[in-house]
Amino acid sequence: MAGEGEEMVKNKQVIFRDYVTGFPSESDMYISSSSLSLKVPEGSKSVLVKNLYLSCDPYMRILMEKVEANRDFASLTPGSPVTGLGVAKVVVSDHPEFKKGDLVWGPTGWEEYSLIKKPEAFFKIHHTDVPLSYYTGILGMPGTTAWAGFSEVCSPKKGESVYISAASGAVGQLVGQFAKLMGCYVVGSAGSKEKVKLLKNKFGFDEAFNYKEEHDLDAALKRYFPEGIDIYFENVGGKMLDAVLINMRVNGRIAVCGMISQYNLKQPEGVHNLMHIIPNRIRIKGFAAFDYYGQYSQFLDQVLPMIREGKIVYVEDIVEGLENAPGALIGLFTGRNFGKQVVLVAKE
Amino acid sequence: MAGEGEEMVKNKQVIFRDYVTGFPSESDMYISSSSLSLKVPEGSKSVLVKNLYLSCDPYMRILMEKVEANRDFASLTPGSPVTGLGVAKVVVSDHPEFKKGDLVWGPTGWEEYSLIKKPEAFFKIHHTDVPLSYYTGILGMPGTTAWAGFSEVCSPKKGESVYISAASGAVGQLVGQFAKLMGCYVVGSAGSKEKVKLLKNKFGFDEAFNYKEEHDLDAALKRYFPEGIDIYFENVGGKMLDAVLINMRVNGRIAVCGMISQYNLKQPEGVHNLMHIIPNRIRIKGFAAFDYYGQYSQFLDQVLPMIREGKIVYVEDIVEGLENAPGALIGLFTGRNFGKQVVLVAKE
Repeated sequence: MAGEGEEMVKNKQVIFRDYVTGFPSESDMYISSSSLSLKVPEGSKSVLVKNLYLSCDPYMRILMEKVEANRDFASLTPGSPVTGLGVAKVVVSDHPEFKKGDLVWGPTGWEEYSLIKKPEAFFKIHHTDVPLSYYTGILGMPGTTAWAGFSEVCSPKKGESVYISAASGAVGQLVGQFAKLMGCYVVGSAGSKEKVKLLKNKFGFDEAFNYKEEHDLDAALKRYFPEGIDIYFENVGGKMLDAVLINMRVNGRIAVCGMISQYNLKQPEGVHNLMHIIPNRIRIKGFAAFDYYGQYSQFLDQVLPMIREGKIVYVEDIVEGLENAPGALIGLFTGRNFGKQVVLVAKE
Repeated sequence: MAGEGEEMVKNKQVIFRDYVTGFPSESDMYISSSSLSLKVPEGSKSVLVKNLYLSCDPYMRILMEKVEANRDFASLTPGSPVTGLGVAKVVVSDHPEFKKGDLVWGPTGWEEYSLIKKPEAFFKIHHTDVPLSYYTGILGMPGTTAWAGFSEVCSPKKGESVYISAASGAVGQLVGQFAKLMGCYVVGSAGSKEKVKLLKNKFGFDEAFNYKEEHDLDAALKRYFPEGIDIYFENVGGKMLDAVLINMRVNGRIAVCGMISQYNLKQPEGVHNLMHIIPNRIRIKGFAAFDYYGQYSQFLDQVLPMIREGKIVYVEDIVEGLENAPGALIGLFTGRNFGKQVVLVAKE
């Protein structure tokens, strides 16, 4: 019920213009502003949140096309704000489990304030001695992806050889560090000299290379894995996957949570070397972090101490302001980001 | 030691001419004859066997190219007899575990008599109330492939939807019957009307179709699996796999023991729809029957009673005479065989 005494605020938004084909650009989004009443319908069990940090994730490109709804996501809606994961603070709540001031992370809108109709999808944030932005990354979906993907999907063993593509990104940097902590030999690839340095010097990878400087990916992999790869953490797809398939060891495992090289292609590249999975008994498994959200508190119990004790580090690339969000998202696909890409909307 | 009194026999052989590129032909093999002394070197632990049945299997095409040796197989040797799996009878033995008259199955040569230097690779045949030829099929490598591939690799559950390509072949016909016995919905594809009838009428598949008559494999799969496929038993690869990938259900499983459509291509076809494994959490697993040979006696304990009680049937396509072996092998790649392809060399 609109009425006297209610507080109105300006609500800046990043609007999704229309479905995208091929490579996306900043102009597929635009900034708009509306005004908003700081209230939620009574009995709606909704909450109104102020968005603090927004997460730029590669999967978002997929939702810029009209895709069949699945249990994880729906496509973006042309003319409506971009949706994604973020960290937010509850401003008004009609839900018994959330109260004003609660910090949460989960699905929200690319705007200053969002009305959340199903706040049950939020995780409450109880630990604020670590940067809040971490809940878009190491302590959010990418962290869960890396942790569950490595420990559950890859079935790693001490001493095994692990290869990670897109290794300096939100997920890859963590997989590499988890693998090192387990006593694996870890090699990562990334798209610039600086990222390669980061992998070796900051994250402690055994080796790293710039895939853009390798005209023969097969030869590059043979250089770093003369005896083959036990575990491949796949973020890339296409030619990289083809090169990996001919370098896997017997009983190797490939965990697939993304194929960023393919998202902007009208027709995905063909993968030609799948036959190699037969003699080498390779297991390839697609997975999504959501399947492991039930283990989130166990995940926090393991990873929070690692962060506090400095056993694991996390590099973020934080841009400030909603108006810079479209560029930050598009930058993921040219590799402009240096670490996990985050957008700072407001400081509490 | 050659000497007086030793028995000499004529030994007809199928000789592999030279490495093959592209589609193989009968002329890649030729018939030759030599004479052989029916003895084995003393202290060699070898055995000399008389070959009874030889198995024609799709994997043999791979060994007609020069491939890197792996733990399962080596390439064929130009100028030497074709090698493969077969049923044989021990004629002379210098090995303590084998004696004259023993029936065995395992790796042997495409010839009337073979000197086997490592008879440890043989399985002894103890049950002869079933056709001996079965040890090239339902009770040999293809049977183990179907049994282990379905029960261990596919993790099947009652009521699930199972699709089998090359379904009337040595492996496919068994996977379908195992799946029916478990209470699954089973659809198979094959390459002729007669084979489709066989699948439905003899093997009890719920549905079957002729893939050669389907210009749109995706549409065909949607017709038989409107709610998607839980388990795909992959024998084919290429376009078939691409069509299956977009029809798999969440948490679907693909067991891969062969990709016969790809073996004769200089460059394997590209598979474009691998990205679908992410939202649908698909598991793809390459495997080989050899890995399950340790469970062979358990396999026999389960499958022999099924055969005796008529719960499972097996269709073989038996040609007579070594001189017809090259044609039988090549026929696998044009789909000429009707059921498991076997060559009868001698009746004990």
